[in-house]
Order: sequence, then structure tokens, then C-alpha cells
Amino acid sequence: MSEHHFLHGFLNPKSIAIYGANNKGNSLAALQIMNLIKSGYDGKVYPIHLNLKTVMGFKAHKSIANVPEIPDLVVIVLPAKVVPQIFRECGVKGVKRIVLISGGFRELVGDRKNTLTEEINDIAKEYGIRFIGPNCLGVFNNWYGPEKEIKSFNIFIWENLKRSKFSIASQSGTLSCHIWYDPENLDLGLSRSLSVGNEANIDIVDCLEYYKDDPYTEIIGIYIEELKRGKRFLELAREINPKKPIIAMYVGGTEAGNRALQSHTGALTGDSKIFDAVPKEAGIIRTDYVQEFLDIALILSRGILPKGNRLGIITNSGGPGAMVANNAEKHGLVVPELSKRLQEELKEILPVTASFKNPIDCTFDMNLAYFYIALPEILMKSGEIDAIIQYGVVGFQDVMDDYLSYEKIAKHAEFQHQPEQIIDALAEKLVQPTIKNSKKYSIPILHISPMNYNTPWSKQLRKNGVILFRLWDRPVNALAKICEYVKFKRNILKLN
Amino acid sequence: MSEHHFLHGFLNPKSIAIYGANNKGNSLAALQIMNLIKSGYDGKVYPIHLNLKTVMGFKAHKSIANVPEIPDLVVIVLPAKVVPQIFRECGVKGVKRIVLISGGFRELVGDRKNTLTEEINDIAKEYGIRFIGPNCLGVFNNWYGPEKEIKSFNIFIWENLKRSKFSIASQSGTLSCHIWYDPENLDLGLSRSLSVGNEANIDIVDCLEYYKDDPYTEIIGIYIEELKRGKRFLELAREINPKKPIIAMYVGGTEAGNRALQSHTGALTGDSKIFDAVPKEAGIIRTDYVQEFLDIALILSRGILPKGNRLGIITNSGGPGAMVANNAEKHGLVVPELSKRLQEELKEILPVTASFKNPIDCTFDMNLAYFYIALPEILMKSGEIDAIIQYGVVGFQDVMDDYLSYEKIAKHAEFQHQPEQIIDALAEKLVQPTIKNSKKYSIPILHISPMNYNTPWSKQLRKNGVILFRLWDRPVNALAKICEYVKFKRNILKLN
Repeated sequence: MSEHHFLHGFLNPKSIAIYGANNKGNSLAALQIMNLIKSGYDGKVYPIHLNLKTVMGFKAHKSIANVPEIPDLVVIVLPAKVVPQIFRECGVKGVKRIVLISGGFRELVGDRKNTLTEEINDIAKEYGIRFIGPNCLGVFNNWYGPEKEIKSFNIFIWENLKRSKFSIASQSGTLSCHIWYDPENLDLGLSRSLSVGNEANIDIVDCLEYYKDDPYTEIIGIYIEELKRGKRFLELAREINPKKPIIAMYVGGTEAGNRALQSHTGALTGDSKIFDAVPKEAGIIRTDYVQEFLDIALILSRGILPKGNRLGIITNSGGPGAMVANNAEKHGLVVPELSKRLQEELKEILPVTASFKNPIDCTFDMNLAYFYIALPEILMKSGEIDAIIQYGVVGFQDVMDDYLSYEKIAKHAEFQHQPEQIIDALAEKLVQPTIKNSKKYSIPILHISPMNYNTPWSKQLRKNGVILFRLWDRPVNALAKICEYVKFKRNILKLN
Repeated sequence: MSEHHFLHGFLNPKSIAIYGANNKGNSLAALQIMNLIKSGYDGKVYPIHLNLKTVMGFKAHKSIANVPEIPDLVVIVLPAKVVPQIFRECGVKGVKRIVLISGGFRELVGDRKNTLTEEINDIAKEYGIRFIGPNCLGVFNNWYGPEKEIKSFNIFIWENLKRSKFSIASQSGTLSCHIWYDPENLDLGLSRSLSVGNEANIDIVDCLEYYKDDPYTEIIGIYIEELKRGKRFLELAREINPKKPIIAMYVGGTEAGNRALQSHTGALTGDSKIFDAVPKEAGIIRTDYVQEFLDIALILSRGILPKGNRLGIITNSGGPGAMVANNAEKHGLVVPELSKRLQEELKEILPVTASFKNPIDCTFDMNLAYFYIALPEILMKSGEIDAIIQYGVVGFQDVMDDYLSYEKIAKHAEFQHQPEQIIDALAEKLVQPTIKNSKKYSIPILHISPMNYNTPWSKQLRKNGVILFRLWDRPVNALAKICEYVKFKRNILKLN
């Protein structure tokens, strides 16, 4: 169904014309054309340039009129004042889809608002053109081409991201792409990203309509500064949200925030105030933090929703356990004292100095198989908790390997490096049963290691599907918001 | 003066006896002895072991009686039940300082509280022994030996940390050391760390007394589950805090939090409730988040305090600028609209599509020298702001280098790799003037790059002293807490 939506063509062009690129790499269009190459895009690419013969190896044309076909998509990175003329030429050529990257159309420049937006809107209407922007970064599709061939249509994301079903629509370019530069975020992956900029022609509501029926979108992330069609947005959010959770960053409400917005997208008032009421009514997961936005999406991306808000805490260190418990209850989670029966069961495998009530502090005296597999399984089976946070999945071998790198230690040590295959096998053996149980019982489990996200053991855990955090602040807060969403969803489903 | 405090000897032992180590690396004491080797400790090390001849190359002794001198410090990692006997043997030998790592003394084991704590306390009193713990990780001193020789006395931190004047006292071992495994935290560095565990003999108040006069401590971080000497703590905090800021994580207040505490350190009630009132009264910077604890310490470690709470925001992207502005005002910072005069001054160097009011969005069309040097300088000189957050210090050359790694791009690109020295020199040239201005005007500046903390450009920035964050959530929150502290300090100084 989403294939019939007009945005589908923006995400799956077989041919693209690009204005503003060069070989020097010093313009946004130049970066875009390089991103196409980097991501293995195999459609036609037509740079439009007055002087250059070729751009990045692609034959350049002096104007759109000279291009040998009507390109599926046109990307424009040129000064605002020449854009109306370019729009007209594209219209004459028969172009129907434009990504307008350039800014300077609606922003308050000096003290007056210019009228270029109205001008390009009129031209677009005249020729039946839909365009995204201005003042945006464009579109990204990680499911370009057949499902089994991993290809993307990517003009704006610098990292090659793994495929997932998390899609973004954003009024800020940065929030649609720059948040992906760090390896910590790569586990989340990405499906589509639509940077809508000033929304002169296509807005967030269009994106939601597309994502609603898109089989490659299961979680939606949005960044909003202004809602142009508040009522329709609310209707759609209500419809989508019980099936596909929507995570939203909405900026506004403070004086400085509003001043920033006015300068940024030119947002004046609109019906932006409606948004303060929308999240609660539509069950939108709202956050003020970009890191939390990514964390929530990562946890949701496993497709495992908790059934309630009772948290089980497993730790091998008292401090983090206590902090998780304390923050959890401050954020609306419940950390129930486990039943006597369950405590007895836990005692059978825990060391004598452990604590059993919840948090379960099993100390460092712990058999790894118990720690990674048996403890979570007992909790999951018990029916007494809905989600688990587990602190202390430390890479012991990484620590040992570091010691062995000191000659004075290596000379005397009665332990040794373990071959990579052994560590690989160990990680799989320790992690997979718990990942399976997490699905089976629909109980999300979040792991925390104090070590770097890219140490060998941490990488092994991530490779096996572990949702890994480095410190214990973020998983609690993200999980608390997900539990609020679950509560909303349950209530909605009851009503329907 | 702090040299006369009894804790000084714990941090500067010239000889150590260690119970519980081996060559297999499978006990905490084994890790500790390896950490001593790793950190280049050059005092005497005497492993005490019934069977082994040597431990990690050090001659082992069957009992403390056989050690050829009275060691300055004894470290014990043995089951709780044998500890009273060991204490007695140490007392007979003349030992005055013990680090008691083992747990199981005061925690509720099963349903009863054991009396081992009373027993070892009595023995310690009899022989004039002071001991830290039980249930702790020990002590760390990054200023061991003469100032110019970089050496540490380190039994428990796995990373070699750079020296700084940030000192920790913690009732959780993890909070005293495990938070240092990630390179993101290494810029902060560390001075001392004291893991006090259950505080049977030495408590947080002792640590504060020592840090008060310690020339190597300028910022103090504490983790508290229970306050044994609430009144003295409050007095000390009031006295110390205007000179040396105290950052505190205090866990408690929720049911689950308290349950965790009871199991962890055995904390029952004490006068722990006093702590809820203490932070405000004593100006302690309180946080529930370990990441924020580290962030605040990092910002404070530069020794530059803002004079007020007016925030200037420089950005090359609207979204992050708007989010920073919005969150800043939500957390009690002010993002003032800049004066007309200042806006005019900014206009002279900013591109026409920029915004000038604050946030200052200079777009990506920006001359680097203006972005890194001139803009912050104009703001700092203006007298209109007290702190700066600057988003977008992107490593452009890193991005370009990545493109050049694709053959299809490299073949056509009219740009090239830059030699490392050029990038080094550029970073220094762009960053140093602003670091100097920051000191000159006493205006902290926090930089944000969306890229990985360890990309070449980010490393360059950090090497030059930049306080670098990857996303824009954390710097706002940490700065807001620092501004609250500044307000407290100003009021206190006025009163005195």
C-alpha cells in the first residue's frame, strides 16, 4: 500500500539529477554525490553543472533540459534566489520530485520574511511537482532494491548503517542524520529517514501517512519544532501509535527555545501549542534528549515489549544495583521485593553473601552460566517481573589480556590469552539462551558493562543481540518511558 | 597539613603485605597485585600465602610474622571468618593500617546480622590499627612519589589514568573505580580514590577531613548510601564546599533503593535522612546519575567557574541549538537575547542566513577561524553571557579521509588527505586562543561534536584541552548544576 504513496518515489529513485555538486568536496551536493557512490547506489546519476564536464566520474549536463531522460528525483543545492528558475526548468522537463536542500526561503533574513517560498510553491503547483524542504538534508532509504541485496539510497548519512525498521522524520537535518556518527548508535540501524526542513510542500504528517503502511517501518522517530496540521497529526498518531510506537522530540515552550525556532525554520506560531497535549493523548513517547530518543528506539527495535512496569535487577555490584533501583522508582517503575518462594530458588545458585530480594546482588563470586543464563531465566519464568536490567557483563578476558601485555606479569601468570574462537563460542553460549528467553516470555533485558562499548567482549555481546549500555543511568530512564507507552497501548487496545 | 592526617599513610605506603593473591588471576587480591605491577609501584610487596613460594614474582611469606619488616599497609582478601585471627596477627606484628576488602561482616546473611564487625573493631582498638572497609576495594593515589615522576599507588583501577585534582570517596567500590573503563572519562583524570565500604572504622567524614587540606584535591566526588556522622558531615561540607566543590550521588528515599542498601552495606537507618536536607544547605552538587557526576567533575576540573547562569549558544545546526536552548531554560539557565549592539557585531562575520539572537546559528557556511575563535571571543568579551555551549566541532578532514578510502571517489576527487602535522597545527591554532579566553574571562566553554569521541579530530580537540561532548543533552544538565553551585558559593561568600 505504501508503494502508492507519493513519498515512495522519493525513496526509490532509479535516476537522480543533482545541482551544485563538484569534485572539490566543498559543497553539500558534493558530499551527497559521494555518499551515493559510497553506499553503492546503482541508479543513474546526472550532475547538472554549467562548467564541469564530469562530476565524480558522472557526465555532467549544463541544464536539466540536456539530461537524456526525466530523472525520478532532482536534488538542488543552490542559492535560494536561483531556485525558482530551476524549479521552472524542472517543471518544463517533466520532473515530479524535488529535494530542495538550500535554505534562505522562509527564515527571517535581516528583519523581513522573504516570499521565495510562495514563489516556488506556485511553480510546483503549476507543474505538479512535490518537493521536500527547503532547508533540509533530503531522504535516506536503507531498503533500496531487493531485500536480499543490501543496498541503500543514501545522500546524507556518512556511516553505512545496518538495516532495521526504525524510520525517522525530522524538521532538523542534524536529527535526521548526524546522530549516527557514533558506533554506540549503530546497533539500532535505520530504515528510512526523511529530513523535511521547512515543510513548504511536504510535512511530517505526509511522512507519518507513508510510514503508517510501510512494511519497513515498525518504530517511528520524529523531531518536531512546529506542527502545521495539528489535528491530522493527532488523528494519525492515535491510529499509528498502538501498532508502531512513535518517539518524539518536540522543542518549544521556553522563550529561548521559541527564539531559536523562529530563526531556524521560521516557525512562528502555527498550532504548535497543540503538541503539548498530543503526546499524552496519542501515547507518543516524548523525550527532551536525543540520547534517550536513540536508547528508546534501540530497546524497541528488538520487538519485545514488557507487559508491565515491574523491574528485576541483577547486579554483581551493590552501588549500581542501588542506583538503578532508586532511579527506577523515581521514574515510575516498580522494583518489587521477590516472593519468598522465588528467593529460595535463587539462593540455591547464589553465593552465600549474595542478596536475593531485588536487586539481586550476586557479587563477583558468580558462575558465569548462572549469571548470564540461569538468573535471568528464573526471573523471567517467575511471573514476578516484566523487564530486567543486568549490571556487570564485564569482559574478564579483556582485563586478563591487558595484564598479560605487561612483561613482568606475563612472566609469572598462570593464566593465558584465550583464542578468539573460544571467546566467540563462549559469548554465544552465554548470551543466546537469554535472548531466546527474552522473546519467549516477552521480557526485555538490558545489559550494562562499565567497559568501553568496543572492547572485544562488548562487541561479542552486541553481535549476539545484547542491548548494551555502558553506565546504568540511561537504560532505566528509557525503560521507564517504554513502560508508560505499554500502559497507554494496553488501555487503547482495551477500549477498541 | 594533610600529611599529618592518618589517611595519608594509607595512600603512600612504602611497603605492602597482601593476603589472598595468587598467580592464577582468579582472586581480587591477584588483580590488585597485578595492578601494583602495572602502575609501576616501586615499594616493597609481600604476598602472604600458606603454600606458594612466590606470587607474581614477589617472595611469599607464610604469615605476617615472617615478613622482614612491619609493612606500612596490609591488604586482606580472605573469607570473613578468618579475618579476626589475621587482624590479631597483624596487631602483634605492629601493623597500623589495614585495607579490608572482604565482605560478609555486616551484611545481613540469611536473616541474622553477624557480629564479626564488632570483633574486628575490638581487635583494631586493642592494637591501635586503623582499617578501611570491610566490603571495599581499597585506596588509590595518583600522586604517589615525587610530583615530577608520574607514579601511582594503584591496587584497583584497571586503566592508567592521568593525574588530576579530582578525588573520590565512595561507599560503593564500583563508584570508586569501575566508572573509569571508558576513554570518555579519561580526560577527567583522578587524584585519590577511597573506597570505604561498610565504614566499620574509617568513614566518608574521615575522607572529607583528609581532602579538606589535601593540596592534590580540588574537586571532591562522593557516593553515599548512609551517613554515620551526619552533623560532622554537614559542618565539613559547609566548610569545604565554597573552596572545593563536592559532587554527590546519594542513593535512598525509595523503597527499592532502601532495600538494596540494606542488603548492600547493611545500612539500616542511621541518620541517613539528614542527607536530603544537606545538599541544599551545604551547596553540595547532587546528582542521581553517574554520567552526570563525571560530566560535572570534568567541567569543574578546568578550574573555570561561570559568574552567573546566562548561556550563549553557538551552533552550525538549528535543531541542536534549539534543543540546547530549550533544555537550558528548563534546567534553570537563562539564554538571553543578545543586545542589538552585539548582534550587529556578530553580523559582520556571520553569513547572511545565520541567526544572531542566541542561539547563534552560523550554518555550515562558516569560516573555521570565525567559528572556533572569533565567535566565542566576541561572546566572552560582551559581558552578556557567563558560559558557552558550542555545537558542531566536526572533523571535516576525517569525513574527507573516509570518502577518499573509496576508490571510485579517490579517482575523481580534487581534495586530498592532509598530513597529520597540518591537522595538529590547525587544531592547536583553532583551539588555543579560545581556551585562553575562557580562562581570561572565566567563562567555561563546552564543545560538542556528533562524531565519535576517538576520531582523529576529536582526539586533537581533547589533546588541546577542549571539554568535548558527543551529543548535546549532557553538557546542558551538567552546566545547570554547576551554575546552581556558583550561586550558592556567591551567597556564602557574601555572608562571610
